[in-house]
Amino acid sequence: MRAAVVGASGYTGLELVRILLRHPGFELAVVTSEQNAGTPLGEYAPGLAGLTDLTFEAVDVASIAKRVDFVFTALPHATAAPVVKGFRAAGLPVVDLSADFRLRELATYESWYAPHPAPELLSTAVYGLPEVYREEVRKAQLVAAPGCYPTSVLLPLLPFLRAGVIAPGPVFVDSKSGTSGAGKKLAANLLFSEAASNCSTYAVGGKHRHLPEMEQEASVAAGADVSMVFTPHLLPTIRGIVTSIYLTPQAGFDQAQAEAILNEAYGDEEFVRVLPQGQTPSLAAVRGSNFCDVAAVVDARTGTLLLLSAIDNLVKGSGGQAVQCANLMLDLPENTGLLEAPLVP
Amino acid sequence: MRAAVVGASGYTGLELVRILLRHPGFELAVVTSEQNAGTPLGEYAPGLAGLTDLTFEAVDVASIAKRVDFVFTALPHATAAPVVKGFRAAGLPVVDLSADFRLRELATYESWYAPHPAPELLSTAVYGLPEVYREEVRKAQLVAAPGCYPTSVLLPLLPFLRAGVIAPGPVFVDSKSGTSGAGKKLAANLLFSEAASNCSTYAVGGKHRHLPEMEQEASVAAGADVSMVFTPHLLPTIRGIVTSIYLTPQAGFDQAQAEAILNEAYGDEEFVRVLPQGQTPSLAAVRGSNFCDVAAVVDARTGTLLLLSAIDNLVKGSGGQAVQCANLMLDLPENTGLLEAPLVP
Amino acid sequence: MRAAVVGASGYTGLELVRILLRHPGFELAVVTSEQNAGTPLGEYAPGLAGLTDLTFEAVDVASIAKRVDFVFTALPHATAAPVVKGFRAAGLPVVDLSADFRLRELATYESWYAPHPAPELLSTAVYGLPEVYREEVRKAQLVAAPGCYPTSVLLPLLPFLRAGVIAPGPVFVDSKSGTSGAGKKLAANLLFSEAASNCSTYAVGGKHRHLPEMEQEASVAAGADVSMVFTPHLLPTIRGIVTSIYLTPQAGFDQAQAEAILNEAYGDEEFVRVLPQGQTPSLAAVRGSNFCDVAAVVDARTGTLLLLSAIDNLVKGSGGQAVQCANLMLDLPENTGLLEAPLVP
Amino acid sequence: MRAAVVGASGYTGLELVRILLRHPGFELAVVTSEQNAGTPLGEYAPGLAGLTDLTFEAVDVASIAKRVDFVFTALPHATAAPVVKGFRAAGLPVVDLSADFRLRELATYESWYAPHPAPELLSTAVYGLPEVYREEVRKAQLVAAPGCYPTSVLLPLLPFLRAGVIAPGPVFVDSKSGTSGAGKKLAANLLFSEAASNCSTYAVGGKHRHLPEMEQEASVAAGADVSMVFTPHLLPTIRGIVTSIYLTPQAGFDQAQAEAILNEAYGDEEFVRVLPQGQTPSLAAVRGSNFCDVAAVVDARTGTLLLLSAIDNLVKGSGGQAVQCANLMLDLPENTGLLEAPLVP
Repeated sequence: MRAAVVGASGYTGLELVRILLRHPGFELAVVTSEQNAGTPLGEYAPGLAGLTDLTFEAVDVASIAKRVDFVFTALPHATAAPVVKGFRAAGLPVVDLSADFRLRELATYESWYAPHPAPELLSTAVYGLPEVYREEVRKAQLVAAPGCYPTSVLLPLLPFLRAGVIAPGPVFVDSKSGTSGAGKKLAANLLFSEAASNCSTYAVGGKHRHLPEMEQEASVAAGADVSMVFTPHLLPTIRGIVTSIYLTPQAGFDQAQAEAILNEAYGDEEFVRVLPQGQTPSLAAVRGSNFCDVAAVVDARTGTLLLLSAIDNLVKGSGGQAVQCANLMLDLPENTGLLEAPLVP
Repeated sequence: MRAAVVGASGYTGLELVRILLRHPGFELAVVTSEQNAGTPLGEYAPGLAGLTDLTFEAVDVASIAKRVDFVFTALPHATAAPVVKGFRAAGLPVVDLSADFRLRELATYESWYAPHPAPELLSTAVYGLPEVYREEVRKAQLVAAPGCYPTSVLLPLLPFLRAGVIAPGPVFVDSKSGTSGAGKKLAANLLFSEAASNCSTYAVGGKHRHLPEMEQEASVAAGADVSMVFTPHLLPTIRGIVTSIYLTPQAGFDQAQAEAILNEAYGDEEFVRVLPQGQTPSLAAVRGSNFCDVAAVVDARTGTLLLLSAIDNLVKGSGGQAVQCANLMLDLPENTGLLEAPLVP
Repeated sequence: MRAAVVGASGYTGLELVRILLRHPGFELAVVTSEQNAGTPLGEYAPGLAGLTDLTFEAVDVASIAKRVDFVFTALPHATAAPVVKGFRAAGLPVVDLSADFRLRELATYESWYAPHPAPELLSTAVYGLPEVYREEVRKAQLVAAPGCYPTSVLLPLLPFLRAGVIAPGPVFVDSKSGTSGAGKKLAANLLFSEAASNCSTYAVGGKHRHLPEMEQEASVAAGADVSMVFTPHLLPTIRGIVTSIYLTPQAGFDQAQAEAILNEAYGDEEFVRVLPQGQTPSLAAVRGSNFCDVAAVVDARTGTLLLLSAIDNLVKGSGGQAVQCANLMLDLPENTGLLEAPLVP
Repeated sequence: MRAAVVGASGYTGLELVRILLRHPGFELAVVTSEQNAGTPLGEYAPGLAGLTDLTFEAVDVASIAKRVDFVFTALPHATAAPVVKGFRAAGLPVVDLSADFRLRELATYESWYAPHPAPELLSTAVYGLPEVYREEVRKAQLVAAPGCYPTSVLLPLLPFLRAGVIAPGPVFVDSKSGTSGAGKKLAANLLFSEAASNCSTYAVGGKHRHLPEMEQEASVAAGADVSMVFTPHLLPTIRGIVTSIYLTPQAGFDQAQAEAILNEAYGDEEFVRVLPQGQTPSLAAVRGSNFCDVAAVVDARTGTLLLLSAIDNLVKGSGGQAVQCANLMLDLPENTGLLEAPLVP
């Protein structure tokens, strides 16, 4: 199965490359980058030297469509959709890692992002969270890989919303992400001299673009509108997201019930690890892996529920989850190419 | 004014030393450490070489009481109280940086810590948050310097509780601290190889010892019992705490009201900076300084209030605040020795 | 091929586990740790949860020898040798990652380390640097995996010594290592609060234990005694070693000759990448991989030669190189289980 | 004494501001930045909010010259010289932190940098290393503050060259710098995601612009041409430079002689600390301070001499040293405003 990574020079694209180079079901055949067309991948990213002879090319949908069987698009929002449309028109299955096909409502997309370049495809896209939409992903030809923050939030949260054990009211979400989540962007706040030894919030007060995607999926799970307060932080790490979610459950809800809900949801899942009581998720335990670690803590004294999670934003939060979806779409074992252990330490 | 730092080999004690060496109102006359008695301070902490000729001595209250006019105690809880008692009996004013005199209720202290070695002093101690208890601190002979997390939580929170604008229900607090908050303790999770590139929670579910201190002061401000959910995190930085507090205010509460409350509380305070709208606190802006930066964000869409703060845990969260209290106790200008600018970058 | 990792709770042992879990030629059957016997591996190292059901056991050579076909020993020096001796007596091939079998001269070992517990095995051991001793490793039953610093030094240096192009005189080596090289040791200088934002030398003046191993191999390559000045540094990173080597080559030696020497030595090597002119090795390009990147820079103005290298100390400097040797001993393709791409970024 | 910092938005300029705000001999009256003219300093650098009411202005030499008594210029090379010329023409003393007045030979400057905009001033400038040129600095009206790397190299090296105890041949210098040394420049290699957990060399092979400055001063000290091999590294820290220098001394040179040379040179210096035998310089011991820690290690076995140093590149390597020079020029105690202790930890 020959694959293309369209938009391979960003951190998301490079992570797809890293995974696909070791994936027994794919031959990575095409990598694109407009700015770096003509540059060997191993020269652009010296870490990959010796592992591939590929050279970046510019996007030419017609040409690429003839040379591959599967496409991953890792382009900026609004840039991705027209390219996805081209590959879909050529009959190729696509996993798109942009925001272009994550939102079901066109109006929501356009209020948060830009005019949608291919709205007719929205209804054909499946939200690529395999633990939630596994069967839909299997049958899909277009999968929208979730954002990194939403993955870290929805996996712990959705089972509780589905179970109907949460009292109404806004969900408070406090997330902390490594700098790679912001991409390879030349912004002053992402300089080492500014981000190291530092931590701060950004996009507070309902301004982060991952919010509508999270509220959409939370509302589906709850069967009712769910609103969220989302506070993202920039952490002085390269990779990883840890998330805390503060909830008020029904009266009498206890630790055993919370663990039962998580275990029922994820007991058979390979990539979601429900931590035993007393353990809490950490970036170190997921670094470089496709795992999402989750834990629930009921505080009987205050009558509250705390949900915790950790992922590597570039793996389970991005490239790894995209490949997990691709495996499903191609009827490969879901974990193919994804069982790498975390770097410890 | 000759000062002693009793327990000067830990990070809190060293920070007191760092500040007092440059303080025009104090002559640092005595530093103690049982384990390092006889070792020159500049040999133990090479960064201080050339700035002082002091040598650690073992604690001998009677001897030290004759040679100093003011005492800072930076000993572990339960170890501090007997020493404080000795210095107080000798008539010396004391700022204690342990937990021993922060809690008003003996039973609360003993349920969280240990049998109290000097309960008779509890009622004489003032909680050393100058922005809240300035007049009491001025008159006190025994001040209990607040914990680092409580400082980062109470400064943004108390004005809103005092104003009576918060709906009943638990306060959700998500805090992130650098490793120096855990002291110079040889624990595996504090090793660079474990803590770097990492972030995780600990002591969740109502287990952190700073919780009773925070609930005590929040309840005083609210005039009613306030319960808190407190989720501390270990950050891969040496210094600094950032805190997010999630609240539900009364209906109709807006951004202007929130800012008015903060400005009224802190408009005249030198060390609490209320950030202009759109700015959020960051560790980088307070590193090495005695500032506490605070901000409030009302999210009208969800009807919620987010409070944010940042401090250097070793300065405003510990040694700096202790010196701020000492300045008040000695009728010195409150900012004496504390106007150092943060390290930028 | 069933394998044991004896001494699996340290960073070297855990890295072997990480690699072997994904290695198609090995089934990891036994992991040992005296201190953690009875603890599941996935509980001790939560990152490995879900990837293995193994539980640490105490070392029992007789019992383990019946259950495995190959042994990796990752124990402290002097502790390793008796265990290695037991496994060798049971007829099992062993790769030892301690210092016990790296030095050919018993007296040298004993002057730097301790009385040798199994000196009779010294002459049977092969120094496990596959790029230098490939054929010997293939035939060996006992391989001494090199130290991490020596790997980073010898790979760039040996080809120049073998070529006889270096003027006599001491070799100046300046190396910088991440903290994982010191192991999971509870030492104050390894705490995050001490090692972060820091960099300093240690064991200067000919005191580092990797020195005799480096001089031994350098002297073999040069065919004459080579002495070294070795200056190790502790870097604020978890993984990785970068090394600079300062040499005075014969008069007239130029850049083309330097590159020819490296290319001749490593042009066909999969795990040693000779960087093109203008590129220099970096930790980021080897993180998590078995690569050693090398470069040579001739400075015609000063008539000097600078050699540079970068490795991940836990992979090519330890567990990865050990597995590379094991692959050779077992006649597997040398790169089996080792082609993982570096984490980028 | 009213001071201007011309070019105050870069890291060097901000550090001058940080120091001058606390300096009892200066009133910081003017800060300039072309790009940020009109922006309050405390808005541009939130860490400085509340400490100053200054607003950036564009450079207008005539206007500024009327409002200040002393000028610090922290502009890029070639941009600085015309501005310095203007202030000198107006009769103001200037400490320039660019490279424009560090090199005595016009041709050397122009071969490394650019056509010199004010060559007539070269002969009037004094190289601002107070420990070497104290009397010249006292009398100077134009001081060229040394580069950060040169400060870290020359302070340990010059005493040995002056003493005539070093054998001829190139001096090998291996330096490691935090990212702030590269300034607030939007370059990919300075992003946190690229520089964190990383370390690599750059500008090797005689290409770094600090080389001519170091060779110039080394040659003056030696009384003969000295050539250097200089290998700078980028460290994953914000602040600090550690340097190793490899030398071959005369036969028989020993540790006592080495220490005597350092003690004679620096025994009376406040800001150069000669470490006792067995201690080595570390960034942690100088962070945020004006100290340069130095040590010498003679390795009798190899007949070599290793010199080590550590500085905070923004203090002793830049802003602090500039203020130290200004103190001398103004006949203030040399340490005025510079006795801040390092941040420990």
